[in-house]
Amino acid sequence: MMVGAADVLAAQARLRPHLPATPLHHAERFGCWLKLENFQRTGSYKVRGAMNALLAGRERGDLRPVIAASAGNHAQGLAWAGYRLGVPVITVMPCNAPQTKIAGVTHWGATVRLHGQHYEDARRFATELADRHGYRLLSAFDDPDVIAGQGTVGLEIASLVPDVVMVPIGGGGLAAGVCLALKPACLAAIKQTRGIRIVGAQVEGVDAMARALRGDRSPVAQVTTLADGVNVRAPGRITEQVLHDLLDDIVIVREAELRETLVRLALEEHVIAEGAGALALAAGRRVPGRRKCAVVSGGNIDAAVLADLLSRVRPRAPRRPRRRRRVEPSTATPVVSKATQKPGLHAVEVPAPSRPSTKAPKARVPEIV
Amino acid sequence: MMVGAADVLAAQARLRPHLPATPLHHAERFGCWLKLENFQRTGSYKVRGAMNALLAGRERGDLRPVIAASAGNHAQGLAWAGYRLGVPVITVMPCNAPQTKIAGVTHWGATVRLHGQHYEDARRFATELADRHGYRLLSAFDDPDVIAGQGTVGLEIASLVPDVVMVPIGGGGLAAGVCLALKPACLAAIKQTRGIRIVGAQVEGVDAMARALRGDRSPVAQVTTLADGVNVRAPGRITEQVLHDLLDDIVIVREAELRETLVRLALEEHVIAEGAGALALAAGRRVPGRRKCAVVSGGNIDAAVLADLLSRVRPRAPRRPRRRRRVEPSTATPVVSKATQKPGLHAVEVPAPSRPSTKAPKARVPEIV
Repeated sequence: MMVGAADVLAAQARLRPHLPATPLHHAERFGCWLKLENFQRTGSYKVRGAMNALLAGRERGDLRPVIAASAGNHAQGLAWAGYRLGVPVITVMPCNAPQTKIAGVTHWGATVRLHGQHYEDARRFATELADRHGYRLLSAFDDPDVIAGQGTVGLEIASLVPDVVMVPIGGGGLAAGVCLALKPACLAAIKQTRGIRIVGAQVEGVDAMARALRGDRSPVAQVTTLADGVNVRAPGRITEQVLHDLLDDIVIVREAELRETLVRLALEEHVIAEGAGALALAAGRRVPGRRKCAVVSGGNIDAAVLADLLSRVRPRAPRRPRRRRRVEPSTATPVVSKATQKPGLHAVEVPAPSRPSTKAPKARVPEIV
Repeated sequence: MMVGAADVLAAQARLRPHLPATPLHHAERFGCWLKLENFQRTGSYKVRGAMNALLAGRERGDLRPVIAASAGNHAQGLAWAGYRLGVPVITVMPCNAPQTKIAGVTHWGATVRLHGQHYEDARRFATELADRHGYRLLSAFDDPDVIAGQGTVGLEIASLVPDVVMVPIGGGGLAAGVCLALKPACLAAIKQTRGIRIVGAQVEGVDAMARALRGDRSPVAQVTTLADGVNVRAPGRITEQVLHDLLDDIVIVREAELRETLVRLALEEHVIAEGAGALALAAGRRVPGRRKCAVVSGGNIDAAVLADLLSRVRPRAPRRPRRRRRVEPSTATPVVSKATQKPGLHAVEVPAPSRPSTKAPKARVPEIV
């Protein structure tokens, strides 16, 4: 393989001064941990791979300007990394890229060229520009430095000791990196030995990697999806090879499930994910596991799209929590005599405890679900 | 004082098995740290005070059912704590409480009574019910156990060593707790000695605490605000006393500023805050400091309200980052010869480094802003 676990560890060392670890949050009502890469600089994990590629390039003495084609997040990450390191960055994005992503790129002083309707059109144009002007062309996923950088997400999840990790798959850069980081060879280095299953998530109709892995290389039709970040029609060669060897499974998610998960994430967990960001969690419903972790890969969604989803999608009510044994108010009330009632500060002003209920004290022992 | 730093430390010990610490997130474009209490169980910090009050009550042998009046979040926190500890909970909420907060209470099996238009109406009714049925009445803020519980937010911020901490003020429970936690007496216990300024934030027209602290006790008119969580017309007696002694300043925020901050938080930081949750950060713009931290107190906002804000409010573009010295693409491009161009994997397949630019390598040394 062109990239391995050691590269991921090297990337972690390179990135540590620049990118702090993102939070791990337990989404109680989903029964799943979330790795919140929407809190990453520029709002998605892509900055890891971009920064690692620029830093590794500099170590090798490659100081050329960098050009990249991107659905949006790679461009933003690269613009930020270029700004930090003083490297000129040119990005080519499809014309339908979300406004928030375009604004995120120009914010960091990078050049934006809008070209074509899909990632592949943008990629062809970027290749042409790179050839013409002598820029360094940096793939959004099919590059060893990029894959190693994305793999640092996996290293940060390792401390959670999950049994399943779910990641969204577009070109496969994140999934490949996480596989390299969490599969045994690398885990030995960080003193973890338990087997962790890695499950990829793709949207129906944009499942190029799932097809490629089962040998189906027929061209995929162009579709529009909420998950613009994973709308890639030709998966990477390196990523495909890594995933072929290390990925455990791929789950295909329907658009409706994706929308509902995105809205539930917002309303129940107060997390804004973009379409691709909610993908792994949406897949999680069909993945068994005792300690699951889904990567929320990014949060760059246009205000209008989010507002529309929030006003249209009505998610089902969350499942009621398991009933606990308890004393009904009607039973417990008469036990307390009227005399001990004092509104406000009674608990501190009256040091003598009020008479405890003698009926079912055992039911009051704390339990943790 | 009826509550002190020691009570906050005791609350921390009590709550540790039940409530994990919430994340601290650096909001780069705001230049401010965020304490994300919208990621707390039930979506707001209120669960800390409620849980601490029930646990402390149990230690004192008080096993009565608990009743509380609440703008919504205290009710949710109490419902969750009651569910966890097997204590029956009755909550009284104003009729205009957000649907998401009402659903959050019933989700955990507590009883909801809707009464009146404001917190004060609900509080009167709750007091009446407590007297009639012998329930324990738990104030949403004016209770030593509740204040001590909320103070644990401050202890979790201490590790950041901020110079200013900004908190929203309604009844004053959170602000009082954070003051007790972060002012010198308590800090000595956790080996911190630097002075930290605590600044409260209130909305224009709902500034009862600010008035009370300057001795103005004239009744405050009923207003409607986006920050329903701090819509309290009569501040607590204990909280007022604590804030009088320990709070450094109060900033009054306009509704328009609040709306813009809430939308910017969503679009730039991917964090969903409720009105009161964005209040401290909104105030932060007028608070000087080198290392500021704002408490995002909660995230329970109705989908329709958020959707409306997202489609109506157009925040100003964030300030451009400082320009960095860099080599312009036009200067750097000719240095790289056409021959070294290879799209894709060149960086790995061609181990020899491409010829570095000789013009301005010094500008490429990494800097951290």
